[in-house]
Amino acid sequence: MSLSAEVCLSPAVIPYYDAEGKNVVILDIFRASSAICAAISFGIKEIIPVREVSEAQEYKNKGFLAAAERAGEIVEGFDFGNSPLAYLKEELKGQTIVLTTSNCTQAIHMIKGAHSILIGSFLNAKAITEHLLKEQKDIILLCAGWKNRFNLEDTIAAGYIAELLTPHITTQCDSFIAARDLYRSAALDLGKYLSGSSHSNRLKHLNLTEDTNFCLQKDIYSEIPAFNGKGISKY
Amino acid sequence: MSLSAEVCLSPAVIPYYDAEGKNVVILDIFRASSAICAAISFGIKEIIPVREVSEAQEYKNKGFLAAAERAGEIVEGFDFGNSPLAYLKEELKGQTIVLTTSNCTQAIHMIKGAHSILIGSFLNAKAITEHLLKEQKDIILLCAGWKNRFNLEDTIAAGYIAELLTPHITTQCDSFIAARDLYRSAALDLGKYLSGSSHSNRLKHLNLTEDTNFCLQKDIYSEIPAFNGKGISKY
Repeated sequence: MSLSAEVCLSPAVIPYYDAEGKNVVILDIFRASSAICAAISFGIKEIIPVREVSEAQEYKNKGFLAAAERAGEIVEGFDFGNSPLAYLKEELKGQTIVLTTSNCTQAIHMIKGAHSILIGSFLNAKAITEHLLKEQKDIILLCAGWKNRFNLEDTIAAGYIAELLTPHITTQCDSFIAARDLYRSAALDLGKYLSGSSHSNRLKHLNLTEDTNFCLQKDIYSEIPAFNGKGISKY
Repeated sequence: MSLSAEVCLSPAVIPYYDAEGKNVVILDIFRASSAICAAISFGIKEIIPVREVSEAQEYKNKGFLAAAERAGEIVEGFDFGNSPLAYLKEELKGQTIVLTTSNCTQAIHMIKGAHSILIGSFLNAKAITEHLLKEQKDIILLCAGWKNRFNLEDTIAAGYIAELLTPHITTQCDSFIAARDLYRSAALDLGKYLSGSSHSNRLKHLNLTEDTNFCLQKDIYSEIPAFNGKGISKY
């Protein structure tokens, strides 16, 4: 039996996919899924993703470290936003952090019935691909997008994983072909290709070029963050 | 003031776009929007798009010519489906035809507040582009997709119009960039590029290769079908 793979370009289209029993990989490159991959790889024990800022605040009131991002910025009163660099601190090793973001943590909670929900990025794309091929469960690569709209960086990252999967899978999914072919257009210089994207421009205005450069590094981590229904930790 | 242009990759994402006062172009290449362009250019007076087969049946009971397509096939009891070739008949000139299809006629009814709703295809892409540039209203190119999912052929057609618009507009829309860049990958041989797409395969199974070849011809018509709230006729 052959392995099938699909790409879902926006959370708004999730209802038209069937995730039952599949391995779902969530991609939110700028910056939540990149931050989660960096954090878990660096040694943070667990990230608890929540939908609402108010939920994150409740955890914070109970003494948890809590991170909240809206519109690309740290929400006032929180310890972090979704900058991956903020998580690479010795004192955070072994800790649990509660996180709410504009897109990624919403998408995580929209998937129903999956075999597993994994957090992907350019940073761990090869490791994710090897894991997916080893497990031999059908695959959905889910782009978190921006406020339910398509975005380039998540699609190109899905396309990178799609490119790595291509020799090993069958697909009837046009989004899979499109993501892969866009990745091929972008592969020579991801940063240059994405410099015209809407979110790159948003982050440039916020002086976050260091973050975007970090997020576009390929395969620097081999850890696979997985969501167990409550928290995200090393698979 | 500069002209802005966006691409909407699926009807499921329409709620996240603001069509107010804009020119919206609906693309459903295989085959409804191609059929409408062919029909109106050939001399059919009006196409009345309806959502439900039952509505089309009511019109048919009143004596209208009626066309209905579901799952790529003509619904039993109707005069046509959405094959463009079926509309190129002398006896249909000057007639009104009621039409319901899986995706296109649904999308037409989802747009609210637009300045105009135009029907586009490869067949009239240049004419549409010239019209859009003359009108100088902000633009949304809407891909009808397949059951709310992304498809390649509508995206590549949006990408062709996006390519023609590029020197004249500004965009903050990642879908616009993606559609244009996918068109550039496909441009050398549209048929070959799209031969791997899900809907090409669906139509191959239905022996409709003649239809797909017809739909991929560029710029053979200069007419622009426009929806006036009830029917589609020559702008």
